Amino acid sequence: MIENCLSKAQVINRYLPATLTAKEHATAFAPSNIALCKYWGKRDTELNLPTNSSLSISLGHLGSHTQISHSHSNIDIVRLNNKVQDPQSSFHLKVIAFVNLFRRSQTIGLIIDTRNTIPTAAGLASSASGFAALMLALDDFFDLQLADQQLSAFARMGSGSASRSIYSGFVHWEMGEQLDGMDSVAHQLDTQWPNLRIGLIKVSSAQKPVDSRTGMDRTTATSNLYQNWPAQAAADLITLDNAIKQRDFHAMAACAEHNAMSMHATMISAWPPLVYWLPESLAVMQRVWQLRESGVAVYFTMDAGPNLKLLFEQSSQALLETEFSQLDIIVPFGD
Amino acid sequence: MIENCLSKAQVINRYLPATLTAKEHATAFAPSNIALCKYWGKRDTELNLPTNSSLSISLGHLGSHTQISHSHSNIDIVRLNNKVQDPQSSFHLKVIAFVNLFRRSQTIGLIIDTRNTIPTAAGLASSASGFAALMLALDDFFDLQLADQQLSAFARMGSGSASRSIYSGFVHWEMGEQLDGMDSVAHQLDTQWPNLRIGLIKVSSAQKPVDSRTGMDRTTATSNLYQNWPAQAAADLITLDNAIKQRDFHAMAACAEHNAMSMHATMISAWPPLVYWLPESLAVMQRVWQLRESGVAVYFTMDAGPNLKLLFEQSSQALLETEFSQLDIIVPFGD
Repeated sequence: MIENCLSKAQVINRYLPATLTAKEHATAFAPSNIALCKYWGKRDTELNLPTNSSLSISLGHLGSHTQISHSHSNIDIVRLNNKVQDPQSSFHLKVIAFVNLFRRSQTIGLIIDTRNTIPTAAGLASSASGFAALMLALDDFFDLQLADQQLSAFARMGSGSASRSIYSGFVHWEMGEQLDGMDSVAHQLDTQWPNLRIGLIKVSSAQKPVDSRTGMDRTTATSNLYQNWPAQAAADLITLDNAIKQRDFHAMAACAEHNAMSMHATMISAWPPLVYWLPESLAVMQRVWQLRESGVAVYFTMDAGPNLKLLFEQSSQALLETEFSQLDIIVPFGD
Repeated sequence: MIENCLSKAQVINRYLPATLTAKEHATAFAPSNIALCKYWGKRDTELNLPTNSSLSISLGHLGSHTQISHSHSNIDIVRLNNKVQDPQSSFHLKVIAFVNLFRRSQTIGLIIDTRNTIPTAAGLASSASGFAALMLALDDFFDLQLADQQLSAFARMGSGSASRSIYSGFVHWEMGEQLDGMDSVAHQLDTQWPNLRIGLIKVSSAQKPVDSRTGMDRTTATSNLYQNWPAQAAADLITLDNAIKQRDFHAMAACAEHNAMSMHATMISAWPPLVYWLPESLAVMQRVWQLRESGVAVYFTMDAGPNLKLLFEQSSQALLETEFSQLDIIVPFGD
């Protein structure tokens, strides 16, 4: 990992007007996303520049709604799902640190109100949709008129995968090469896939023992096997791009499962070992493999946590609803 | 994987006398062994030449006793734990194929009687001790007077890890470079470690869904992360050699656990994924990690199966017997 000398503010400032104007209020929505080729490892921790390109699918209307308005005082108020957050909480501090990148020296108190429409505790990360929605709302509130690529790059500085939540559908985040990361941005793929389904299986909603950022750092620092991860991700992206173009479900979903298992393998080979799986996760995996052996077209992906996200098509939905009683089904192209 | 053109027979024949003499009977014992740095991947499948050096600890008096005698007919009889094996069974065929490498064209029927003293279904491989004991018994029976290094090399042709079961204590199997594999042999380390304990935890005694040989082949063929395994094993061997010399328990056992987890990671990143763990395996791992967090000096290693082998010292034995009711404790230097 090579750190460059650019801070977030240095990069962003170049794209901001000399003085900001602020609207009365602004609202924005960004979808949550699930990666089919995972973002795992950073080449720059300040700007969240990744060691590999990645590819995700956005979850339609499931995501974050963010509203920005004036607090009409010199204090900031951060609300999440209608609850005011403690000003010392990590959530409040992260949101305000991000807002400050755009507000700069302006002394205007703001109310930042975020509501997530992600199924409660379904094991879906909300930081991606949260920072993407916040970026879109800031763009509107301060009338920044940033291009999509800039919105993606700046959202990435809040949370890496937020770069992808700027778009709906299939989204490819190109890792880029530049030191300032302005080419490390996402773009949307053309393909629509109305029959595609994602089934959430919640194994646990407990706080993760090791957060993703720490897990990523430990993996890159201590797993010998990690060295081959970027090459695998690059190969998987080509496979996924082709499979999606051809709407080849088996090729797409098998590659996504292999990619997720390989990411988990890099964690398992970290020291101390990083195993996000719970015994129940393993039981669900084995059930998926049994179903597949018996001819059911179902695969899964997993992020840095114990929950599974099944990948299947509409034709298998009824059967899988019977097999997994607590399946929470998402239709990414359903809106 | 580069296949060379040498068969087992071609290599072995060079070390055999022109005509064999046979004793009335011969018996031999070889211990089972547990690898602290795993053998995982072959550069030659005919001769079982590995892609990495490995290191194991032999299990004292637990292993295989093999007796060879004349059947006084032209048929061979193979017995395992007092049961005559079906001549078409894989066990009978493998034993006779190995015997034939030494018997060559001699038309003498033999009785090969093997008894394992490994705890029943404790998840310990018996092929290592089995082929090592068979090799030692053949050497005696045919009065071959082979050197230890040759015994190790030939036992390896029966089962890779049998090269290590020729010796007691800590054993280092050097991968070697030669095409005929005669430098791919094991040697014993000096260190004695009387306080060392190995605790077997049997999670399942069911037949493995994928045998080790198939698992190894699938991993090397499909896991991208496997490419870094040989380098990790080489580094781990240096760490283990030093830790054993200094009887540094934490350094030795931590390296063994990291090595085992990394081997499993290469399988998990194979396609289709190869997960030998059962939900119960994961529950035991997590219990071990919790105990370690609370200050108990306990680590584990695992082979290509769901069972765990705890590593600890005599001072932790009483506590661990309370924690794990079904712990089967081995004292490798206890005899």
